[in-house]
Amino acid sequence: MTTATTTQQELFVLSGLITWEQAIKRATALFDGLSDEDLNKEIVPGKNRVVYLLGHLTAVHDRMLPLLGLGERLYPHLDELFVTNPDNPAASFPPASQLREFWTTVNQQLTSRFRSWTPEEWLQKHTAVSDEDFAKEPHRNRFSLVINRAGHIQYHLGQLAWAKK
Amino acid sequence: MTTATTTQQELFVLSGLITWEQAIKRATALFDGLSDEDLNKEIVPGKNRVVYLLGHLTAVHDRMLPLLGLGERLYPHLDELFVTNPDNPAASFPPASQLREFWTTVNQQLTSRFRSWTPEEWLQKHTAVSDEDFAKEPHRNRFSLVINRAGHIQYHLGQLAWAKK
Repeated sequence: MTTATTTQQELFVLSGLITWEQAIKRATALFDGLSDEDLNKEIVPGKNRVVYLLGHLTAVHDRMLPLLGLGERLYPHLDELFVTNPDNPAASFPPASQLREFWTTVNQQLTSRFRSWTPEEWLQKHTAVSDEDFAKEPHRNRFSLVINRAGHIQYHLGQLAWAKK
Repeated sequence: MTTATTTQQELFVLSGLITWEQAIKRATALFDGLSDEDLNKEIVPGKNRVVYLLGHLTAVHDRMLPLLGLGERLYPHLDELFVTNPDNPAASFPPASQLREFWTTVNQQLTSRFRSWTPEEWLQKHTAVSDEDFAKEPHRNRFSLVINRAGHIQYHLGQLAWAKK
């Protein structure tokens, strides 16, 4: 790819896409480097277990499907365990192997769609903003949302970096 | 601002700028909400003190000035304490009040320049990439670097969220 064949819009899109993909890659490498037993440990004493953050990130990404107009959610049942409520060792979590699979599946679905979008499609509004608000705040688009979610991954990666193996 | 008067390029730029400014705002609110004494506490036992992350983020942002072609660094002396070496309670840190001031100053300098850039200026290469590499990888531009640094703030914000007052 060279500047001669890439439009300015495509370069901006590429930055956003790479930001998303790199964050996913880092988080996946971190989860893959931990055993199921490691996932059940608190990151630091008194804080979330790693498995909670795996479920949390998966649920938040699953919510991106309808938010970005990409169809129905795959795993809406994760919200109660991983979004609405804080970590709770007494709650019955899905097996780690299943959560790892959900994480991979939802990210693949999102990323493959992102790769197919034209710059115009990236700039469409997300579904949490009204037509009226979008007319006034056109930056509340899919591109901003995806960058925001990449930042959300980074936020939890900072915490996960403290997880002991 | 409406879509009628905003070009596509300007919308992508706006997303990047808002991402940066929101991350700075969140981190500043967090540091401002802690006393100088709080800054000297470890975030969690055995991990960095808050003051180390304040100095670290300030030094990393100071390094953005030459990286983005915006001139000389303001505080190169921070590197040894906050980038090259890990946190060290025996090291002689600048007073917290001074670090807070450095943080504000460097971010103001960066942000005011970012606000003045045209989309073309955002897509210029940063100085850590060679002309040859940039021809092959035109996404290694200022826009990508600024989004990356906003992600770096988020990473440490995730850790700072665990700082007790």
